[in-house]
Amino acid sequence: MRGEFELIARHFAPLAADVSGAFGLQDDAAVIQPESGRDLVYTSDTISAGVHYLPDDPAGDVARKLLRVNLSDLAAMGARPEGYLLNAAFQADVEETWIAEFAAGLAADQESYGIHIWGGDTTRTQGATVLSLSAIGSVPHGQCLRRSGARAGNYIFVSGTIGDAAFGLKIALGELADELDGGTQAILVDRYRRPRPRVTLGEGLLARNLATAALDISDGLVADLAHLCAASGLAAEIDAAALPLSTGVQQLIERDSARLSTALTGGDDYELVFAVPSERRDALVELARELDLPLTCIGHLEEGAGEVTVRGPDGTVVKTAQTGWQHF
Amino acid sequence: MRGEFELIARHFAPLAADVSGAFGLQDDAAVIQPESGRDLVYTSDTISAGVHYLPDDPAGDVARKLLRVNLSDLAAMGARPEGYLLNAAFQADVEETWIAEFAAGLAADQESYGIHIWGGDTTRTQGATVLSLSAIGSVPHGQCLRRSGARAGNYIFVSGTIGDAAFGLKIALGELADELDGGTQAILVDRYRRPRPRVTLGEGLLARNLATAALDISDGLVADLAHLCAASGLAAEIDAAALPLSTGVQQLIERDSARLSTALTGGDDYELVFAVPSERRDALVELARELDLPLTCIGHLEEGAGEVTVRGPDGTVVKTAQTGWQHF
Repeated sequence: MRGEFELIARHFAPLAADVSGAFGLQDDAAVIQPESGRDLVYTSDTISAGVHYLPDDPAGDVARKLLRVNLSDLAAMGARPEGYLLNAAFQADVEETWIAEFAAGLAADQESYGIHIWGGDTTRTQGATVLSLSAIGSVPHGQCLRRSGARAGNYIFVSGTIGDAAFGLKIALGELADELDGGTQAILVDRYRRPRPRVTLGEGLLARNLATAALDISDGLVADLAHLCAASGLAAEIDAAALPLSTGVQQLIERDSARLSTALTGGDDYELVFAVPSERRDALVELARELDLPLTCIGHLEEGAGEVTVRGPDGTVVKTAQTGWQHF
Repeated sequence: MRGEFELIARHFAPLAADVSGAFGLQDDAAVIQPESGRDLVYTSDTISAGVHYLPDDPAGDVARKLLRVNLSDLAAMGARPEGYLLNAAFQADVEETWIAEFAAGLAADQESYGIHIWGGDTTRTQGATVLSLSAIGSVPHGQCLRRSGARAGNYIFVSGTIGDAAFGLKIALGELADELDGGTQAILVDRYRRPRPRVTLGEGLLARNLATAALDISDGLVADLAHLCAASGLAAEIDAAALPLSTGVQQLIERDSARLSTALTGGDDYELVFAVPSERRDALVELARELDLPLTCIGHLEEGAGEVTVRGPDGTVVKTAQTGWQHF
């Protein structure tokens, strides 16, 4: 294993090559000129081996996940990604090939999302690898999507399909192997390992004034929608039959309807859930077409105090846990 | 132990109370309007239990150290602190009292340094506690202190006293107990646990155009000065007799002159080392008086390729390791 400075020079400095103010990651800090007329958006997430990802997940996918969960938070605010800081505390026995693959994953995503590293820190820890990333985005001054701001009567929309990541995790852990063909299993595992942050959608919602509130689904649809409801002082009615499900998840629920609850409460989807005024619904459909991304109405908001009610096809209430995963 | 959201609400949200754009740490990200005419400065550091601090160090001191090592990087750029993001991955058996004391340490330093939390993430790890912090500062547009920029003939100055933290660490580990009285030991341990980032000095050096290059001493004076030399394409001549030493370190070196090497190469001082043109020396002395902070000339820069030469009182070269602590 090389020295710390050489590791940075070899694997991480190339990620900063296009940012003059990052000084090749060789100074004490980066100096970046903010664009006039825009506010800056700051978010930060940590993922840890054995907690947020499986220790044998490919290093490139771990890197993508780390960056993308942060980009998903930016998307939820309607922000354009600008740059990021990486804090990597590697476990003592990390091999340089793992670090190289990790950096390659970041490089690929820098291309995909038009973002560059500005700085960070590379260290070792005595325990499991802990990876933190702080992402910086920007929005036009005075504008952003928030969790609060939704109004009674707004429609509730979600992007993409819901529940894929929760079942993908089960498959990655060796479950459900005899219920789905290999291709479908791979799609769901990919959804778990490589979330697609809805950055362009978030920017579009903000620019076209289509949503009164938004957040990204990391803890599970019901739990995160409950956050939106609580912040907006409303309640949500969800129609389970309207949930956008991938073919694989549809098959799993057809075999065992109790699995609907996993789709409703499973985390790691990193889709957006957002509130749309009825008069903006047509414009939203137009945005969905332009982005070639399914945006599905799954219910509506009404007066209330944070409750999320899910109704099944027969109108009865589907019981779900209202809180998502918590670390403590 | 309470739930994750309640922990954040109880211990960390109060730290964001004065920042409207942090939304009480309850949204996906913070939204901050940058001040017109200023560039933003980004730095990030990680400290890990058993590597960067001792597992039984007081939690409030760990918090201070985490914040201050980042503020020290901002100081090295001449930046004014603006805000920070905290990523805390706590070990599984952390107690809430530890988190409460950690947050209280941050609260005290927020007062001292006029900085507020903007966001972050609170998680658990399967291994040792890993704490990352990203600090955001600002400088007037187009200006900052860098490691490069020094010129041959510039004087080399350091702030404060050198070597205290390295001996403080030894004392915290149970060494040197019979060589110093308790009060002196406590001072050195305090210097290790509670570095004083030279924020006001950094801002003053920048505002008054007193330094051509600067960085903070985290890896050890010789190693960090070597970074400045390499970045500036110069060499350094240091006069060991000029080193500013605290009473305790003076006593230790008087008893064993080989310890001079510890002062020259020990890390964690978080003083600034900087290059001063001869025509700005008088103005620098004036700044030292205003700040009531010792600023000591320890040598000069000359043509070269990154070498740092330390000369003892008799003019002979004092041998020191040129590289500081590296994690890999």
